[in-house]
Parts: sequence; structure tokens; C-alpha cells
Amino acid sequence: MTFNISKDDADALVAVAHRLADAARVETLRYFRGSSLDVADKGGAVFDPVTAADRAAEAAMRAILAEARPQDGILGEEFGAVEGESGLTWVLDPIDGTRAFMSGTPTWGVLIAVGGADGPCYGIIDQPYTGERFEGGFGRARMVRGSDEWALGVRGTVNLGGAVLFTTFPEVGSEAERAAFQRVAAQVRLTRYGMDCYAYALLAAGQIDLVIEAGLAAYDIQAPISVIEASGGIVTDWAGGPVHQGGRAIAAATPEIHAQALALLQDGAA
Amino acid sequence: MTFNISKDDADALVAVAHRLADAARVETLRYFRGSSLDVADKGGAVFDPVTAADRAAEAAMRAILAEARPQDGILGEEFGAVEGESGLTWVLDPIDGTRAFMSGTPTWGVLIAVGGADGPCYGIIDQPYTGERFEGGFGRARMVRGSDEWALGVRGTVNLGGAVLFTTFPEVGSEAERAAFQRVAAQVRLTRYGMDCYAYALLAAGQIDLVIEAGLAAYDIQAPISVIEASGGIVTDWAGGPVHQGGRAIAAATPEIHAQALALLQDGAA
Repeated sequence: MTFNISKDDADALVAVAHRLADAARVETLRYFRGSSLDVADKGGAVFDPVTAADRAAEAAMRAILAEARPQDGILGEEFGAVEGESGLTWVLDPIDGTRAFMSGTPTWGVLIAVGGADGPCYGIIDQPYTGERFEGGFGRARMVRGSDEWALGVRGTVNLGGAVLFTTFPEVGSEAERAAFQRVAAQVRLTRYGMDCYAYALLAAGQIDLVIEAGLAAYDIQAPISVIEASGGIVTDWAGGPVHQGGRAIAAATPEIHAQALALLQDGAA
Repeated sequence: MTFNISKDDADALVAVAHRLADAARVETLRYFRGSSLDVADKGGAVFDPVTAADRAAEAAMRAILAEARPQDGILGEEFGAVEGESGLTWVLDPIDGTRAFMSGTPTWGVLIAVGGADGPCYGIIDQPYTGERFEGGFGRARMVRGSDEWALGVRGTVNLGGAVLFTTFPEVGSEAERAAFQRVAAQVRLTRYGMDCYAYALLAAGQIDLVIEAGLAAYDIQAPISVIEASGGIVTDWAGGPVHQGGRAIAAATPEIHAQALALLQDGAA
């Protein structure tokens, strides 16, 4: 990040981020597994439900930002972009994993990041139902659950053949993207599907080694970038460049497996 | 079930089942996400890790049964079968979803069922990390989490086109089985992967409509049968017959979607 942010300013941003996560946790859990789900299809080719919870959670976060950080910009999944004057933008996904949410699976999460044009400085991956909160940036890299706290850190897998790979595929991506993904999946020890943002949290926690996805928006990836980079991992696009604007992402525990997976993806990513 | 079990006998069996689940919860959580995982490959074609947690949890459950129910038989994933004299057998899977467990995903569970040769009378799907316990049988159909309790019950989806389908595929099954599964998946509203026993619990809780799997053992399916049947759902093999001995299973919320999915599976299940 190019910002020169003081410790006091960083602490203030972190405090606001946790207020956002707390508010989103209340709003999402209010609707989770309930009968009041108002699921509508956005009309795209891929099944993409919007729930009342999604909108309520983002509205609650925007209300806090309007009061606490009126000078900052906002980019949210549900209510679009608001320009700011501070150079800082809050990037919000009130429910990452709406398909998990609507089927009662506890692996959906709330994504909150703050940063500038060149990427996030700090982010939270919050898991309201399990009560886990993963945060990274401004010198922090930890998971909190209730009164328990753990330091986050990637593990040291260096051979692709020993890696555990997570993805949302086979549900997302073009045919060429799926083929590229399959070239990597054929080489790893284990591939698992459909965990959404939880996969990035598990990578930061040293439980898995690789996440590969396509078709991401900025709000899908900025919080994961913060948490994983703070935990010692690497997040890029499939060309090895920045991915904070979304698109095709690869997150890896080590430079070694990042390079091995990238080479396989690039065989067909043109 | 053909057993004539008194209310007192049923209460005693339920109490023992909860003791087993409590013990397995302690043993599995002791190892979950820890660095002491002793993962070994059983040597089969499919990646099938056995963890120290798996063995510790089953050993703890067997120790309780040896003391509390010495007359009953035991069929467990890790330590095989013990014949009993009562006609009742405990069917135990200490960790269903070992691949989820070893990647830090919270959706693995402990499966406990008790019954006779014609199937289970009562079962528990326990989710140690989320703290959820689903039970069904002897007039019970409920989920407990901490001090909260919910009645279980399937939902009333009657059209396959509106159904949410869960499975462990594409990871499990022969090519013909995957093709059969894909015929159903092509007709439903949403397909999700890799939830192991959690999928059956979500069906019993009215969150999803269909689960289709293949290659199951008896200990994979007996607890789900109990919980889902107690919640008003249907569990059979792909020919519509009993599946408590394992094999290919279909679980459905209603007779209507069960029949529609079965017809599609049978097109290629020969």
C-alpha cells in the first residue's frame, strides 16, 4: 500500500471494520435458515440469489460508515459505489456465498476491506454462524472466536503434489477457465469445492495451500488479499499480477506452489 | 423397525447415544486444525485419510459401549464389527468427511446410529465444530445447539426444477454413477458439492431438498436415515429399496421429487 497511515489512524480503521462486521453478523444471522428469505434471481446466466439478508447487512454497514467515515468511499455488492474524498475506500460483500447461505450451509461469510486504488490495507473475513473472525493488515493476522484467539500463518507446502486446493469450480468459470483449473487439480493431493470465502480463511490459517477462482468482483477478493498477505501468503491474478479489481485469482501459501500452479494455469489462460 | 422397544429402553438408548456424541466431540476437536494430525492413506484408489482423531473418537465411543451396552453389537468405520446378543447394533462413523476435517472445513461430522438388521431406529448427526446436534428416531426430530433447540422437518418442494441438490460428487462414484447424477443435476435449481453428512442434516432441517451419493458404507448412511425419516423425508437406494447397508443413496424431502430424481437416476443405473 502506498498510504502513510499512522498507528492511530490504523487503529481507528480497524475499530470501524469490526463495527461493520458486528452489524453484518446480526443482520445476516437474523435471516439465516429462516423462513423469511426473499430470494430473487438477479437475472444473470449463473444462479445468483439476492437475499433480504444481503441488503440488510450492507445497509447496516453503510449506515455506520456514513456516521463514522463520511470522507471515505464505498464499493459494495448490493448498492454500488460511492466516491470519497480521503483516498480510502471500503469494499463490502455483505454475504459472500449466497448459494451456501440459502441452502443453510454455514460456510458463507461477510467480507470487509479498506484501502486505496492500488489495493487493500486491511480486511476481515467474518463467519457469522461459526463465530470466527479472520483479520489481516496493519500488523494484524489473527482469528478470533468468542474469547479465543489464534495467530494466522500460511503453511510451508512447496510441492504442488502435496497441496490441498479449494475452489468454487465446477460452478463458476468459462470452459477454458475450467480446463486451466483442471490442469492444476490433476496435480494436487486433494481438491475441494464450494467453500467460497472460507477457502481463503483456511489458507491464511495454514489448513490448505491453494485457492483458484475466476469471475470474481473486487468485493470478493479484497478482504481475502489482506488476510492472506498478512498471513504470509500470495494472491495474484492468473498472470501473476494484481487482482484487487477482481477477475481470475490464485492464492497460494508459498512462492513455490504459486509458481507451479501459475505455469499450469497459463498454458491455457490466453 | 421391527423391534418392540419400550419408552424406557428408548430413553436409555438415546442417553447412551448422546454420551457417545459428547465423547466423540471432545476427541475430534482435540485434533481439529491442530498440528498433531497423523494423516495416513488407507491405500485405496480414492484419497481417504485416517486421522488420529478418527481412531481416538471411535475408541472413546467403544469404551462407553463396552461399559453401558455390552450386550449390543458394534459396527464402526475404524475398528470393524463386534457381534452382539441383543439384536441391536451401534453403527459408528467417528469422522464422516475426513477430507473436510483435514482441510480445516467445519462441515465434517460424527455419525451414530442404533438399530437392527432391517435398519436404524435412532440416529445422531453431530457437528462438533459448529456445536450442532441433529437427532431423529423414537419420536424425536430436533437440532440442538448450546441451549437452543429447533424441531426438524423437511420442506415441501414437489418439483425437481425447484430443488436444491447436494452431493459429494464429483469426487466419488464411477463414471456411470456420475452420468446418472448429472441427469438429475441438470434439472434442479442448484447443485452444491462436498458437504458430506452435513447435507443430510440440512435436508432434515428443511434447508435443501435432495442428496444423492454413491459408494457409501452402512456407517455413512444409517444415522442420516434415522434423522431424515424422523423429519418426514425419504431415504432409499437408487432402485427405491432399503439402503441401510450402504451403496448408492438418494434422500429426498418429498415423495414427488424422490420419484422424479429416481426416474432420472435409473435411466443409467443398470
